Amino acid sequence: MTHATLDPHAAHTPAHPTVIPVAVAHGDGIGPEIMTATLRVLEAAGARIHPVPIRVGESVYREGHTSGFTPDTWGTLRGAGVLLKAPITTPQGGGYKSLNVTLRKTLGLYANVRPCRSYAPFVPTLHPQADVVIIRENEEDLYAGIEHRQTREVVQCLKLVTRQGCERIVRYAFEYARAHGRKKVTALSKNNIMKLTDGLFHDVFRDIGAQYPDLEQEHQIIDIGTARLATHPERYDVIVTLNLYGDIISDVAAEITGSVGLAGSANIGPTFAMFEAIHGSAPDIAGQNVANPGGLLQAAVMMLGHLGQHEVAECIQNAWLRTLEDGVHTPDIAGEHTAQSVGTREFADAVIARLGQTPTHLPAARRSPGQLTLPPIPPAPRDVTKTLVGTDVFFEWAQGTRDPQALADTLKDHATGALTLNMITNRGVKVWPGGQQETHRTDHWRCRFLAADGQAVTHADVVHLLSSFLGSNLDFIKTEHLYTFDSVPGFSMGQGQ
Amino acid sequence: MTHATLDPHAAHTPAHPTVIPVAVAHGDGIGPEIMTATLRVLEAAGARIHPVPIRVGESVYREGHTSGFTPDTWGTLRGAGVLLKAPITTPQGGGYKSLNVTLRKTLGLYANVRPCRSYAPFVPTLHPQADVVIIRENEEDLYAGIEHRQTREVVQCLKLVTRQGCERIVRYAFEYARAHGRKKVTALSKNNIMKLTDGLFHDVFRDIGAQYPDLEQEHQIIDIGTARLATHPERYDVIVTLNLYGDIISDVAAEITGSVGLAGSANIGPTFAMFEAIHGSAPDIAGQNVANPGGLLQAAVMMLGHLGQHEVAECIQNAWLRTLEDGVHTPDIAGEHTAQSVGTREFADAVIARLGQTPTHLPAARRSPGQLTLPPIPPAPRDVTKTLVGTDVFFEWAQGTRDPQALADTLKDHATGALTLNMITNRGVKVWPGGQQETHRTDHWRCRFLAADGQAVTHADVVHLLSSFLGSNLDFIKTEHLYTFDSVPGFSMGQGQ
Ligand SMILES: NC(=O)c1ccc[n+]([C@@H]2O[C@H](COP(=O)([O-])OP(=O)(O)OC[C@H]3O[C@@H](n4cnc5c(N)ncnc54)[C@H](OP(=O)(O)O)[C@@H]3O)[C@@H](O)[C@H]2O)c1
Ligand SMILES: NC(=O)c1ccc[n+]([C@@H]2O[C@H](COP(=O)([O-])OP(=O)(O)OC[C@H]3O[C@@H](n4cnc5c(N)ncnc54)[C@H](OP(=O)(O)O)[C@@H]3O)[C@@H](O)[C@H]2O)c1
Repeated sequence: MTHATLDPHAAHTPAHPTVIPVAVAHGDGIGPEIMTATLRVLEAAGARIHPVPIRVGESVYREGHTSGFTPDTWGTLRGAGVLLKAPITTPQGGGYKSLNVTLRKTLGLYANVRPCRSYAPFVPTLHPQADVVIIRENEEDLYAGIEHRQTREVVQCLKLVTRQGCERIVRYAFEYARAHGRKKVTALSKNNIMKLTDGLFHDVFRDIGAQYPDLEQEHQIIDIGTARLATHPERYDVIVTLNLYGDIISDVAAEITGSVGLAGSANIGPTFAMFEAIHGSAPDIAGQNVANPGGLLQAAVMMLGHLGQHEVAECIQNAWLRTLEDGVHTPDIAGEHTAQSVGTREFADAVIARLGQTPTHLPAARRSPGQLTLPPIPPAPRDVTKTLVGTDVFFEWAQGTRDPQALADTLKDHATGALTLNMITNRGVKVWPGGQQETHRTDHWRCRFLAADGQAVTHADVVHLLSSFLGSNLDFIKTEHLYTFDSVPGFSMGQGQ
Repeated sequence: MTHATLDPHAAHTPAHPTVIPVAVAHGDGIGPEIMTATLRVLEAAGARIHPVPIRVGESVYREGHTSGFTPDTWGTLRGAGVLLKAPITTPQGGGYKSLNVTLRKTLGLYANVRPCRSYAPFVPTLHPQADVVIIRENEEDLYAGIEHRQTREVVQCLKLVTRQGCERIVRYAFEYARAHGRKKVTALSKNNIMKLTDGLFHDVFRDIGAQYPDLEQEHQIIDIGTARLATHPERYDVIVTLNLYGDIISDVAAEITGSVGLAGSANIGPTFAMFEAIHGSAPDIAGQNVANPGGLLQAAVMMLGHLGQHEVAECIQNAWLRTLEDGVHTPDIAGEHTAQSVGTREFADAVIARLGQTPTHLPAARRSPGQLTLPPIPPAPRDVTKTLVGTDVFFEWAQGTRDPQALADTLKDHATGALTLNMITNRGVKVWPGGQQETHRTDHWRCRFLAADGQAVTHADVVHLLSSFLGSNLDFIKTEHLYTFDSVPGFSMGQGQ
């Protein structure tokens, strides 16, 4: 390992041709401690990498960069192709965007791979058989961070799911399972409630799964799936799921194996990859030399596999397993097998002292298949006939007793043109025509307009409809156009409709 | 208990004045078996209720009612005021709306209360100390079921969160904790990512919590919170959270105590309440007389508490605890303390045989405080100054290499009026001005338009902007207006902005 430099150009001309530049972010909270420990192990093991520090996180936020990094950082990252990142702290409060999410999405790191396994009996766990890999979709879902407050009472966040996003992550999961000798892939979603978004994910899983008859396959609803993962992790092998669900279940999977401090993750994209611990910056234990560097070290091992440095990866992994077996433990994994309770630094020393040794009880490191080559994801078919058939117009409205009939009457008084009022819902529940008096009514009303004859309409019809509300004091706050795709409606009905 | 009748009017004139009409839905899958078992126990215990069967669920869906029930059902429900409901099966596939969600939302059942505790050592569990109550928001969040497909590649679901919804559920959680002698309330959300929606929930928790200094309070991020609940449930007491998170963690909490078949839930609204098991219709074990009726029985006990029939509730609960202690177990809770493995029917017989007995090891039933009287939730303040400052217009666009600069140029060519292009994002990531080439680009573009001078605009300006795209072949698919509220922006920035 050559020495760190702040000059990104230096990274392109390492002294030794096989030394690979790796961007390194030391992070916040426990970040600097566990990164220092990890880099010391990598150096001692002879990793052929050249760390190029980048500055991201809390201090950069505090300087006024609401994205958590400075614009010149992109060039450094691109020069490296790989980032080893310690956790960072996103300041609470408005204005700051999560740097992690921005990095993943900007660099197209669509697959978040999180292996979680137990190291029983050496690390205390109630689930000694757990050995599961979570493949989490990393770019979509509610993490688009598109939020709007448009009425006094209601705020909204958009959940976005794409066909290609689903295809890429599902494909990755099956290819990963095959390459790593895994037997089963479980998909988790809430497709019984979110029939279009999670339904799309489920459909893609079924369709792509048909091409992998050698692998066992199942789909579970996320609630029972998370519960079963928490109680019977040994039933699972590879799990593929959407972003938010994956965020939750990978903490569950890591924690039941003994500590969130044990698991690393790879964030994989077509041209870039980022490696980090799955946990956060744990400010409550920062600066105390007690954090477990194991998660970041696992991430570094995955990185070395990704870079093709398999011997170094295996050497570190085996030394780490041996350290756990020898009972050299940080406080988070202390238990009856702990022989020596150590801090972050001393744990790294113990791993370094064991480089070259292999575990005697735990299975030794498996050679990573390295980077996966995915079959190309076909572009989404564009020869679908798309027809505009109406629009949902949303209003802020809070007049009188908020009687839906009164709103319907007002809308009908004003709306002219091809589109006529078909339904009103409040928080998704149909309140007109024919609602129930018990339904709580916020100031946020979705009013569905369709052509009287059910036929196609034009964008001009929508603009005409909106302009008919001008001068009426009606505050329309958003629209959602209604389309059919090859005659299939691309919109849900109201609840109770 | 008088005999069931289909005539809702009969329910209003029971033979005995203290007999209360209760709507009863037998449900699908294992529903009829566990409902029959539960009603037999209620009858034997002398519950002063008058079951009025309603017909909901799969068979009604199949008749073509996409909501899962017939319109006349509302009258029956209203006549009863309380519903005891077995799980139902929502048919897979488009068009069908979840009956459970519709019932909860239409009847304003905002609080979903799910106590989960361990019955160790009689029921096998790795977490003998678990005794936690989940208070789940029941009407909002992604369960609004408002989904749209507006481009060939992208589908969307709206997550809606309201100030009053948060206030009601948080208030309920604190009042519940006090009334039930609980010590701590933990809120779970993802406010570090969803700063407006989950951020609102978090703010309300902090504000209302200040009025309950007698209760310990904490907030955790949902991922680590779920993980810690799965591994250390004894750290939690009362948990309050949003709808989707609550759905997931209550299955976790129930499952770690031994079986999802053990937990019941109350769905509480201002004028109506519904009681059900937390699990679903488990079609895989339906009709086999193996399902555990315990969850529905727990729901019925909560219902009796709600109706003020405390002695009957306690009598049933104690007999049930005694049955568990005696080792009379359905297969899902079988373990080393099982003396007699029984089916659904025989389990009910065993509980009936023990009516009047109390447990000898497990703590006997606590008297329920019954219905909570909440302080009135103040209406959301409406004297906030709301100012329209722009709009996000979303386009389907897939031309050439999908170069954001090309889209920006096209938009600028057409857009006339007060609003000018400020930013373009794709799945939330800023791609113009100054995006990064690695960012994956779907056919779904959010284009932010603001007044050049940052000043207020009018609805007419928005309509003018939209009309400037007519005749351009630009397919605008939705809008999200941008408002400030007392000068605070009601919208998030782009990722990387
Ligand atoms: N990728 C990232 O950069 C990332 C990911 C998640 C969160 N975060 C950020 O991190 C901050 C804190 O978030 P959080 O408290 O929810 O989650 P967290 O940082 O993962 O910490 C949760 C708890 O896990 C334990 N823990 C985590 N890492 C550990 C380690 N290496 N060794 C030993 N124990 C460890 C600590 O528990 P005990 O106190 O019980 O010891 C800690 O309080 C927030 O600002 C959040 O936005 C960043
Ligand atoms: N409130 C409701 O009406 C409600 C709620 C949730 C789901 N659902 C619907 O129920 C259907 C099935 O959903 P799902 O399979 O995801 O969840 P589920 O019905 O809760 O069943 C999941 C598993 O839990 C076990 N289980 C559930 N209840 C049990 C009981 N009383 N006794 C013993 N074991 C029990 C069974 O496991 P084993 O196979 O391992 O024995 C079952 O396969 C779907 O149509 C769903 O929409 C309805």
